[in-house]
Amino acid sequence: MTTRILYSLCGADESRPFSPHCWKVVLALKHKGLDFIEKPTPFTQIPELENGFSKTVPILRDGNELIRDSFDIALYLEEHYPNRPTLFGGEGGKALSRFVERFSQSIIHPAITGIAVADIHDMLDETDRTYFRTTREKMLGRSLEDLRAGREAAVAGFAAKLEPMRQMLGYQDFIGGDGPLFADYILFGALQWMRITTGGNVLAADDPVAAWFERCLDLYEGVGRSVTAA
Amino acid sequence: MTTRILYSLCGADESRPFSPHCWKVVLALKHKGLDFIEKPTPFTQIPELENGFSKTVPILRDGNELIRDSFDIALYLEEHYPNRPTLFGGEGGKALSRFVERFSQSIIHPAITGIAVADIHDMLDETDRTYFRTTREKMLGRSLEDLRAGREAAVAGFAAKLEPMRQMLGYQDFIGGDGPLFADYILFGALQWMRITTGGNVLAADDPVAAWFERCLDLYEGVGRSVTAA
Repeated sequence: MTTRILYSLCGADESRPFSPHCWKVVLALKHKGLDFIEKPTPFTQIPELENGFSKTVPILRDGNELIRDSFDIALYLEEHYPNRPTLFGGEGGKALSRFVERFSQSIIHPAITGIAVADIHDMLDETDRTYFRTTREKMLGRSLEDLRAGREAAVAGFAAKLEPMRQMLGYQDFIGGDGPLFADYILFGALQWMRITTGGNVLAADDPVAAWFERCLDLYEGVGRSVTAA
Repeated sequence: MTTRILYSLCGADESRPFSPHCWKVVLALKHKGLDFIEKPTPFTQIPELENGFSKTVPILRDGNELIRDSFDIALYLEEHYPNRPTLFGGEGGKALSRFVERFSQSIIHPAITGIAVADIHDMLDETDRTYFRTTREKMLGRSLEDLRAGREAAVAGFAAKLEPMRQMLGYQDFIGGDGPLFADYILFGALQWMRITTGGNVLAADDPVAAWFERCLDLYEGVGRSVTAA
């Protein structure tokens, strides 16, 4: 019997978890071949999880262990399950994954926020909508309506931000080389977040990044594809 | 007696080699603790090196072996000198280094070109100046004078492009973790290119990226610092 629980994020429909950071962990657990139960949770109920363990998801309960933060969870899984497929491919890969994370966080996430933020709002239940609007408008310094109006420009500028990925894919199929590593799941999480919240037809069909994303959606019996696009 | 020769790039003053890709290899050779003789070569003499082996430098002669391209040289050194300090920290680090290279190439190099291209021209001897102006103006679609006029704007926009590095440095001292790996030398090469050709006071003194660059300049008895800034 599994005692492994992944607390993730959902809107009004709990069958469509959309958090980029939680998707990184879903793929990391699948990569390690570890069973788990996913418990999608609305924003405003997260502080009640596990006696207030964390203000954000993902949270992983693994038996008696509780771990928060997607990167820390990946490090935990690598350390505690060393005989299963590696998420990093050694110490160098572990260190360089932080660079990929910060690329995703500083360049790709703001771009997706510009595209998806109003759609995310619309996916939430009433209580979460109030919370989300207040925190995001403060954080971004603009109203959701303003952000929605800027969506087309954000979409137009998006593909260029993935140019390092696109060039890298001229050399290898995954950031991890011949197969995916946690670094792939970092950027997969971002694009999966966009796909689930917006429908995500933002990249051209013949873009190598789109082909890589499809390869990631196919992984582990299509777990990423099991949640439909908006 | 060493039979290891690194052919690198210089302008009129051969004591000031400036190619980003050649600097990557200088640091990689030092990292491996391998002796070498550097032969800085002007652009238009490169096609004559080693019986026309390559149109570009770096070229490494290692005994009877000839290798071109900085990344391929790093892979060669890792494979042929496995008992010396690793440049990649395993297969994952090797794969992810390509992502770092493509980040540097697609985001940082164009930005440095916008800052440095006219200064590079001025460093060259007469023959190279003609070659450089013709090829670069064609490649960039603008005159060197236009590019020089855009320099201030390029400088103003530069620091923001290093935001993934800056955020990463909140977690660790080098892209490679506690110590440098080839991934560090990739971005070091870019900033060293800018430093030698322009003087390079482009980053704020308190920028974590500037501190990381200083750490890289200190490596291997200050080999990077041994060539003065413009």
